[in-house]
Amino acid sequence: MDDRDVSVREAGPRDGIQIINGFMPTAAKTAWIAAEAACGVREIEVTSFVPAKVIAQFADADAVAAAALAVPGLLASALVPNLRGAERAVAAGVRKINFVMSVSRTHNLNNVRREREESVADFRRIVAMARALPEERRPLLVGGLSTALGCSFEGRVAVDEVRRFAGLLAEAGAQEIVVADTVGYGDPALVRAVFGAVASEVGPVPLAAHFHDTRGTGLANVAAALECGVRAFDSSLAGLGGCPFAPGATGNIVTEDLCFMLESMGLRTGIDLEALLAVRRQVAEALPGVPVQGALARAGLPRGFRGAADRALAA
Amino acid sequence: MDDRDVSVREAGPRDGIQIINGFMPTAAKTAWIAAEAACGVREIEVTSFVPAKVIAQFADADAVAAAALAVPGLLASALVPNLRGAERAVAAGVRKINFVMSVSRTHNLNNVRREREESVADFRRIVAMARALPEERRPLLVGGLSTALGCSFEGRVAVDEVRRFAGLLAEAGAQEIVVADTVGYGDPALVRAVFGAVASEVGPVPLAAHFHDTRGTGLANVAAALECGVRAFDSSLAGLGGCPFAPGATGNIVTEDLCFMLESMGLRTGIDLEALLAVRRQVAEALPGVPVQGALARAGLPRGFRGAADRALAA
Repeated sequence: MDDRDVSVREAGPRDGIQIINGFMPTAAKTAWIAAEAACGVREIEVTSFVPAKVIAQFADADAVAAAALAVPGLLASALVPNLRGAERAVAAGVRKINFVMSVSRTHNLNNVRREREESVADFRRIVAMARALPEERRPLLVGGLSTALGCSFEGRVAVDEVRRFAGLLAEAGAQEIVVADTVGYGDPALVRAVFGAVASEVGPVPLAAHFHDTRGTGLANVAAALECGVRAFDSSLAGLGGCPFAPGATGNIVTEDLCFMLESMGLRTGIDLEALLAVRRQVAEALPGVPVQGALARAGLPRGFRGAADRALAA
Repeated sequence: MDDRDVSVREAGPRDGIQIINGFMPTAAKTAWIAAEAACGVREIEVTSFVPAKVIAQFADADAVAAAALAVPGLLASALVPNLRGAERAVAAGVRKINFVMSVSRTHNLNNVRREREESVADFRRIVAMARALPEERRPLLVGGLSTALGCSFEGRVAVDEVRRFAGLLAEAGAQEIVVADTVGYGDPALVRAVFGAVASEVGPVPLAAHFHDTRGTGLANVAAALECGVRAFDSSLAGLGGCPFAPGATGNIVTEDLCFMLESMGLRTGIDLEALLAVRRQVAEALPGVPVQGALARAGLPRGFRGAADRALAA
């Protein structure tokens, strides 16, 4: 890894399918995960350990996790909203756990039904649980901050609030902080302000960005975060997704468009773009009637495009 | 004007409709122009003075220009590909003429049927013609460089070629240089390289950016150009558009999404976003069957959004 290496983490099997109508068959989910890993995607958020009565789509979390953990070379992460979810993830053998809470108090109450301070306390319990495990079963622990660039209920969120909760999660033991624009309120200036503030608060803890493209600014926000030194981005194949408890939310930034922009800029994703477009077609066929987004799939790669290898001059 | 003021120039009545099927009625064009000017859009490229046998959509160029010139407070510009078009524009009373040529030799041959050096020579003749006019009829002359970030025929275009032709147009008398990503090959790193090179070549001549969103990078490219000091952007309401002689080209960046991002960043467009969304609906109704793009129209403004006035801290 050097400064030109960027980690694109597929969030589609979790964030991309949580609000679609109908259950995506477990075999289709695991085929998607394996196929995308084969394109060079090295980290995928494969499922969510939430109660099946809250999101029925993840009733098969254990089975999906087991299949994903068997994919060679893949880091399979899972979202957890609380200690119970983290315990289930550990029992399933998951090695990277994405704990998430909201910076917006109202969104946190709607999404996980508790005050933000209770979420931080729950994360402390998750850290204690993980630290008590033998090293070979101990997962990496991520602290995720949703609605960090705005909230459908509260509007703009104060940068100092994002900084404060990032600091609390880092202090509690988060090994990575994910800053998420859950409802697509971000712009490049706000991204620079928020990531700058969070970076100065959490010091050496690596930051990742999770952007939604709700109002068209997703890739512009990526470019701004790159300037802040961020080198890890969540995205969703075909831009699938949205949050069931955030009115007006639409999908994550589009994985294939993100990879195109990064490679065009001379940054290295390690991902085969043509292969990725083929997996996109496979996933779209497995989700009939679900809207797909994305510019690259419509327009195709530029003539003569060879990715980062060809882009040293512009990097 | 200070560094926070940005000029958003509507290109839809020219670039947005040149490849649609069917003739947009003159009255619908002029209603669009007047309605968008009433939103606070101060410059609109209202038509193209090309032969009607080349693009039938602009057979009414004189009538559209006459109507646009009567709109209070509006700077109505027009595209011209050659001296004959510039003479027609001047006869129509147009006060800003956008001459365009391609940096890509192949695209220039396809688009205006001449070598690039012949296009530069033609621009010199346009400058001489304009300078011979009495001051009250003399138009502002813009030098536009299409395919400056890539070409469907030639692939990537050398930055030094863009610099060279920008220098030739500035030397010939261009009072503004427009750098255009005609087919949406750009990325933020390339934008910084190209605009940096052009700015150093043309010195005090102001630069404008004309981006297409073919591969999803349009607004990211705007953010990169803003960092290079660019404060003028072409766009198209609802992302209408594309070039008839550039295979795979799709529409310009979306005017309303661009304005949202700029205002959210604390930059001032002077444009009423809610009013702009109403004009979008009017134009879409006047163009039945023509695909429209745009995220803001689908998602709506963020809760509590008040535009640049509210954004001083993040600017």
